[in-house]
Amino acid sequence: MLRHFPNGMVDVAVVGAGQTKYGNHALGLKGMWAEAASKAFASIDGDFSPSTIDEAFIGSIAFGGSQLGNTAALLTEHSGMEGIAVRRVENACASSGFALRDAWMAIKSGQADVVVAGGIEKMNDLTPERKRYWLGVSGDTEWERLAGLTFPGTYALMARRYFHEFDSNHDDLVNVSVKNHLHGSMNPLAHIQKEVSFEKAAGGFMVADPLTLYDCCPTSDGASCVVLAADHVAKQLTDAPVWIRGSGAASDHLALHDRPSITQLKATQMASSKAYSMAGIEPKNIDMAEVHDCFTIAEVLATEDLGFAARGEGGKFARDQQGQLNHGNTTINASGGLKSKGHPLGATGTGQVVEVFKQLRGEVESARQVRDAETALTHNVGGSGATCAVHVFGRDR
Amino acid sequence: MLRHFPNGMVDVAVVGAGQTKYGNHALGLKGMWAEAASKAFASIDGDFSPSTIDEAFIGSIAFGGSQLGNTAALLTEHSGMEGIAVRRVENACASSGFALRDAWMAIKSGQADVVVAGGIEKMNDLTPERKRYWLGVSGDTEWERLAGLTFPGTYALMARRYFHEFDSNHDDLVNVSVKNHLHGSMNPLAHIQKEVSFEKAAGGFMVADPLTLYDCCPTSDGASCVVLAADHVAKQLTDAPVWIRGSGAASDHLALHDRPSITQLKATQMASSKAYSMAGIEPKNIDMAEVHDCFTIAEVLATEDLGFAARGEGGKFARDQQGQLNHGNTTINASGGLKSKGHPLGATGTGQVVEVFKQLRGEVESARQVRDAETALTHNVGGSGATCAVHVFGRDR
Repeated sequence: MLRHFPNGMVDVAVVGAGQTKYGNHALGLKGMWAEAASKAFASIDGDFSPSTIDEAFIGSIAFGGSQLGNTAALLTEHSGMEGIAVRRVENACASSGFALRDAWMAIKSGQADVVVAGGIEKMNDLTPERKRYWLGVSGDTEWERLAGLTFPGTYALMARRYFHEFDSNHDDLVNVSVKNHLHGSMNPLAHIQKEVSFEKAAGGFMVADPLTLYDCCPTSDGASCVVLAADHVAKQLTDAPVWIRGSGAASDHLALHDRPSITQLKATQMASSKAYSMAGIEPKNIDMAEVHDCFTIAEVLATEDLGFAARGEGGKFARDQQGQLNHGNTTINASGGLKSKGHPLGATGTGQVVEVFKQLRGEVESARQVRDAETALTHNVGGSGATCAVHVFGRDR
Repeated sequence: MLRHFPNGMVDVAVVGAGQTKYGNHALGLKGMWAEAASKAFASIDGDFSPSTIDEAFIGSIAFGGSQLGNTAALLTEHSGMEGIAVRRVENACASSGFALRDAWMAIKSGQADVVVAGGIEKMNDLTPERKRYWLGVSGDTEWERLAGLTFPGTYALMARRYFHEFDSNHDDLVNVSVKNHLHGSMNPLAHIQKEVSFEKAAGGFMVADPLTLYDCCPTSDGASCVVLAADHVAKQLTDAPVWIRGSGAASDHLALHDRPSITQLKATQMASSKAYSMAGIEPKNIDMAEVHDCFTIAEVLATEDLGFAARGEGGKFARDQQGQLNHGNTTINASGGLKSKGHPLGATGTGQVVEVFKQLRGEVESARQVRDAETALTHNVGGSGATCAVHVFGRDR
């Protein structure tokens, strides 16, 4: 079945993508995955059978929460992929961003023509104590978690430092929250589908000074699944493939105190620089980006690290609502982002791709459609920046 | 830095390999990984800097046991690989067998020239309850684990059924144990370095009828690390590369009751068939194999599923000690196998590669050297056969 191309000639496309709604699910792991996979398969225009899938890469962190291990084999045996080569990819909240990268490399390697990348998390079955544990272990444990620093605290430190270094204050973060809630209010798959006013978001109860409730993403259940294909197969499956034009990934110190600066994520800078260079484009060419806004300050830093705003200008970028739908050059988190769409850890990375796939094909609700979107980016971060995967996508012009 | 070859032309070699001793370690995760990685780097003949590594894939299951998450980034930041693209691969006890496969594909894809695959587990810090949990979740949870079936029980069912279907009894399993203890007694890296007599192994205390203590692998700590390189780089790093000639992986139902037969592992059959076909060889061409003998019955089944013995002849193969060092056509578990070398879950798959690397280069203790070993196989299983990765290796002739 496999055909051999020079590496430089195998292009990889997303040909199908689907996800559950994010939120508090009654479904367990197998049910959520079956729903996401079925939707992904159904989104494929041409004649498709899951039996043609060669490999699968599934991202998840807290499988232990649901008491079900051997996660990848468990999920694929019940979704039409029996017998194929599967594995779980775990990289904290960047798990499925890396699952996507590894799936892309599997096709590039000439060893597979059709590959599934996906992710899943069931957070709301966990006790508060286990939830804190499974989130907490993704950061530095020895110097941060065991000393009492949680993720809201980690990002609060970054925010305070950012306000100290640059012309910015909490109002800028409020603007991020208002924008992402606005976008999410139009997304039927979002965990939180409601707008919030500036006043309400500014006055939210304090979680970790200066971050309020409206600066923090919710704890979501959900699953996402995308189907990738080598170019010669992709063209048989759809007239509207979404091409992966660039992939970059990098890592950084887990602990904040080991980093020269805590107002930038080096892993994001390195990963995006590789992805842009591979795609042969610059940040200004990106029409829409799904960025990892686990906290509003993370989106401000990401707009800088990804090159949408100059260093120190991320606050102003947010203040001017440059990332709002069809407002500036690049729409940021048209889906609502982690803040409003929700954040089922392992599902988030490929969930971003589901949004990009639909946007670039003009298939989202019309009010939420990014106009003339041709080029998109996904940005998925693990821990407080210890790992990062960035992908650039484009449709046929 | 990257060169682009047609896929069929990029060969991948193991150029370095190292591991800790398996056993009960005082070292934590970071210490064990640093030791394995340092040994792997030091084993590279030519001028090598870990800064040339492009990606890393690290297998582990029970990171939670050690309270340290974001495992891949945590380990690489402290072993000279700061900043590179890293992820944890989890597939129950086949975690690092799949890490190896994914590392191999990363090079095949043309996206990386030098890639690390490794694995790690720290089992002996876990409470007995957590140990049972972390092992148990790798099998079927809903119908097996929560009903009280542990892994010794699962494999005991396979053994009983095997004795029923074929001309075999517990004595055959005893022979596997005696052989693997003999091999392990000569391996300074093994967890259990002592011979056992047939009588002692036959009379071990019962764990799960018919499996006694001497049929079960120990609970080990350990880490293993291998360095892979694309052919053009490999030739600069060593005159004795160990080539990966074939890779195959597959999955199967988690629960025994879903399988048509429980005296064969379909995932092993599919994975090995792919690996043999890619390497262009047959089982009889394999001089040595490191097989996944978590229980002695698993080795008996594996000798059949991998094609070293005909169906139903695995018991006789063991009875005749055909797998004993330099005794038959194929030496099985020259390292001592999981039974005697030990089984630090996530470290086992790439630990098998460490043995193969040294054997094919003639670098093990002389008493344990497989004579004229040119072609070798590794067989790594997750759960009770839900996932399997098989690799075939060869040295330059």
